[in-house]
Amino acid sequence: MVLGLRLHSALYPSWGLACLLPRSFASCPGKSDSCLMMPQLGLLHRRAWASLLGQLRRPPGAVCIRAVHSHSQVAEATLTSQLKPHEEKSNFIIKTPKGTRDLSPQQMVVREKILDMVVSCFKRHGAKGLDTPAFELKEMLTEKYGEDSMLIYDLKDQGGELLSLRYDLTVPFARYLAMNKVKKMKRYHVGKDFDIAGQFDPMIPDAECLKIMCEILSGLQLGDFLIKVNDRRILDGIFAVCGIPESKFHAICSSIDKLDKMSWKDVRHEMVAKKGLAPEVADRVGDYVQCHGGVSLVEQMFQDSGLSQNQHALEGLRDLKLLFEYLTLFGVAEKISFDLSLARGLDYYTGVIYEAVLLQTSARAGEEPLNVGSVAAGGRYDGLVGMFDPKGHKVPCVGLSIGVERIFSIVEQRMKTFGEKIRTTETEVFVATPQKNFLQERLKLIAELWDAGIKAELMYKNNPKLLTQLHYCENMGIPLMVIIGEQELKEGVIKLRSVASREEVAIKRENLVAEIQKQLSKS
Amino acid sequence: MVLGLRLHSALYPSWGLACLLPRSFASCPGKSDSCLMMPQLGLLHRRAWASLLGQLRRPPGAVCIRAVHSHSQVAEATLTSQLKPHEEKSNFIIKTPKGTRDLSPQQMVVREKILDMVVSCFKRHGAKGLDTPAFELKEMLTEKYGEDSMLIYDLKDQGGELLSLRYDLTVPFARYLAMNKVKKMKRYHVGKDFDIAGQFDPMIPDAECLKIMCEILSGLQLGDFLIKVNDRRILDGIFAVCGIPESKFHAICSSIDKLDKMSWKDVRHEMVAKKGLAPEVADRVGDYVQCHGGVSLVEQMFQDSGLSQNQHALEGLRDLKLLFEYLTLFGVAEKISFDLSLARGLDYYTGVIYEAVLLQTSARAGEEPLNVGSVAAGGRYDGLVGMFDPKGHKVPCVGLSIGVERIFSIVEQRMKTFGEKIRTTETEVFVATPQKNFLQERLKLIAELWDAGIKAELMYKNNPKLLTQLHYCENMGIPLMVIIGEQELKEGVIKLRSVASREEVAIKRENLVAEIQKQLSKS
Repeated sequence: MVLGLRLHSALYPSWGLACLLPRSFASCPGKSDSCLMMPQLGLLHRRAWASLLGQLRRPPGAVCIRAVHSHSQVAEATLTSQLKPHEEKSNFIIKTPKGTRDLSPQQMVVREKILDMVVSCFKRHGAKGLDTPAFELKEMLTEKYGEDSMLIYDLKDQGGELLSLRYDLTVPFARYLAMNKVKKMKRYHVGKDFDIAGQFDPMIPDAECLKIMCEILSGLQLGDFLIKVNDRRILDGIFAVCGIPESKFHAICSSIDKLDKMSWKDVRHEMVAKKGLAPEVADRVGDYVQCHGGVSLVEQMFQDSGLSQNQHALEGLRDLKLLFEYLTLFGVAEKISFDLSLARGLDYYTGVIYEAVLLQTSARAGEEPLNVGSVAAGGRYDGLVGMFDPKGHKVPCVGLSIGVERIFSIVEQRMKTFGEKIRTTETEVFVATPQKNFLQERLKLIAELWDAGIKAELMYKNNPKLLTQLHYCENMGIPLMVIIGEQELKEGVIKLRSVASREEVAIKRENLVAEIQKQLSKS
Repeated sequence: MVLGLRLHSALYPSWGLACLLPRSFASCPGKSDSCLMMPQLGLLHRRAWASLLGQLRRPPGAVCIRAVHSHSQVAEATLTSQLKPHEEKSNFIIKTPKGTRDLSPQQMVVREKILDMVVSCFKRHGAKGLDTPAFELKEMLTEKYGEDSMLIYDLKDQGGELLSLRYDLTVPFARYLAMNKVKKMKRYHVGKDFDIAGQFDPMIPDAECLKIMCEILSGLQLGDFLIKVNDRRILDGIFAVCGIPESKFHAICSSIDKLDKMSWKDVRHEMVAKKGLAPEVADRVGDYVQCHGGVSLVEQMFQDSGLSQNQHALEGLRDLKLLFEYLTLFGVAEKISFDLSLARGLDYYTGVIYEAVLLQTSARAGEEPLNVGSVAAGGRYDGLVGMFDPKGHKVPCVGLSIGVERIFSIVEQRMKTFGEKIRTTETEVFVATPQKNFLQERLKLIAELWDAGIKAELMYKNNPKLLTQLHYCENMGIPLMVIIGEQELKEGVIKLRSVASREEVAIKRENLVAEIQKQLSKS
């Protein structure tokens, strides 16, 4: 809200046609047909993307986009290199690296609006900005991600330290807290991660994280959404109750995490055949993880003969009950679903976990259904900072990550469908002349405008045609035109033209800046 | 201007104490004591920095900062890893990679202000945003940078294409133009590069680039500055007139480029001993490259018996003359110096080149002189797009790059010296209570504020003390406090307190949002 809402409502039609995709592609590496955008860095293949900037907190869970981008969009052209005319070169393809793409001015405008909206929400909730390097020492990233570790990008050794590209923003944040002995902090990172670190009364920061996700997803007008919530301790409780040995908890958790893109049958098969679970144990797990519902399901699980005997599960259930209470006070409880199949792939979660998905709405004319899946996710990670601290001091943390790139794809796709036009510049005034040999006067005039903070352009030609200048303003959506010619110069005036209404008024030169500012403030 | 100027004037004292450092560290690799910040990516060692984001257009020319950062600033702590209690771990150091650092909330605020200011200037001049991936195919970057090529970072082969981190933003921009067959474009990139592509009447876009550099450097209030201007064709003319074979032009250009950090004697030695120039040839070059002055020096060079016979040099001089004419109309000619020693290291320049340096002003009390050097640079590169185009079609380009990281260091250093305090959050209202068991009411109240777009915080405690809440507001600079207790609840009011004046008024609950917005708009 606050920032850029007006533009948002113009840009995003308020109906959402995104269909509900499998929740997560976590632990499903090597999908080479998936293609993702990188903030500030253009577009990278999912692996590189997740490595470098961690789009969703616990990627690549909610990172892949299928069917939205395809490599055919990457323009390719064979060329004979002409680097140096006197050298012979073999043919090469001019293209961006596999899975990456450039962001055009139109795309940049959309991205900027989305990021502005997300950051303004983080600021509304009192978060401080923080940034960490794109690289970390390789050892900082080891044993934090579970099965995802194999997706981390290493840099070529430059004769010094072993470096890896960061895989998400959470592990670097925990490293920062431990390194600087920070015990409390509310931060946001690169416009899409938000975390609250510190020891507080239970579930208040957790509830705020979910409230933030609701504010952002409502504000972006992406259509209806749902936030699935679960707790790692409840999952652990289920595993224990079903008779899974503790050493297999992480591995089974990874399997459960695939339930959004694999059938229960396939997940069950993986648990039995690959992870060595007895079939009847797997079936018991299946009975639990296929449940979902509201706060009443929390109550029901309290009564469950197995879970009610498990200390971990009880702690998780108690927290979820409190969480639902706070979410009701925040007015967002109806957006939340307690979903026992939600696992989140990464190792570092210790408590509540959550993931937002867009709900498919009925298809409207002209809009193709989109496969989108999860657009925001997060959870509590109370042990991660302690892994970095010399004395193992813990700093409890809870956070969330907005799937900015996925949201961007949805909005972009929608705008394509509706053929919406976006201004890619913000130019307010165009400096024109109907006469030859007036470059000097135009240059003097435009410098005055620039120096007054007015966004202004002119044609880089000694003698442009007036019609060409008019057309340029119309095509680019520039609202005002100032015109200077011999007559105006003699009389000490400038013609100010409204491009839309085609009205022209003569303004005294010394009043021009004030008049332009007045006209701009009106529109 | 336009954006954030008010904050700038508060943040940056208007006197400048940056001393004039050697212009460029180009072709001077391996300075492991230099340490640089990366936009969005934290901080990286100069090589990585230059590779990844190309701070100054033609880095690492103006990229290194000496004496501003040192590695001692990087907090280090030895720790015994406690990743998994049951495993034994060897000791390791918790730190960021060599030459990188985290950006704290304070630093992020300063960075954001600087970037806002730079981007608002680019937008004022009608530029569109554009972004390209962080990686390029390795072959896209070869033979574009001359001696700097050895500084490019390669990624480990992941079993696919050979990739390198981008080294600057110019070569990717040229690749983008050729790939998409764009013939005309004014763009900015990641908030610090600005380019104008297209065939236009001579020197109009070039003059605009210099005007933009002046606007930004004045707007940032860094103290006095000077922009050195030269032309590659004039340098080529000098080399030809002095009797250097054409095959050595690039190599000698690289040597000349070091004149800002090496004496003429040392540069001469390099040219003679390493690059095989005859001593008398080197001396003839020396006579030229030690000249600098205003537009009158351009006139003088027109009369030079050698240069006036050289076609390349004459073209360059004619363009510079026109450039000075336009810069006079823009009102910035007095900031420009024609400097024959300016070479810019990179291979791709074809015409006018320029570089802005801060001038040392007399040291004021408490402020240490800073070694800063070049803070912005650029030039014309008419051949680069043609290198990528299948048919060799050329798109003439001219551009500039702002040394955002160097500027950031200067401002940061200055603020440290003056002990200036920065708010790291933008919170407007704090929701407090003097009573126990009021969490529920506080949560309901703060959700109302958030939903109205008001930036609000509360304490994550069931029963916080009122004094603690008051102190928090004072420490964080939060201007307003809303207080709810039993009395207020009963009367349907909320107390609104101004933290600075300590005045309290009771506001009807239904009028609270409007009243807060009124108070905030006043301040």
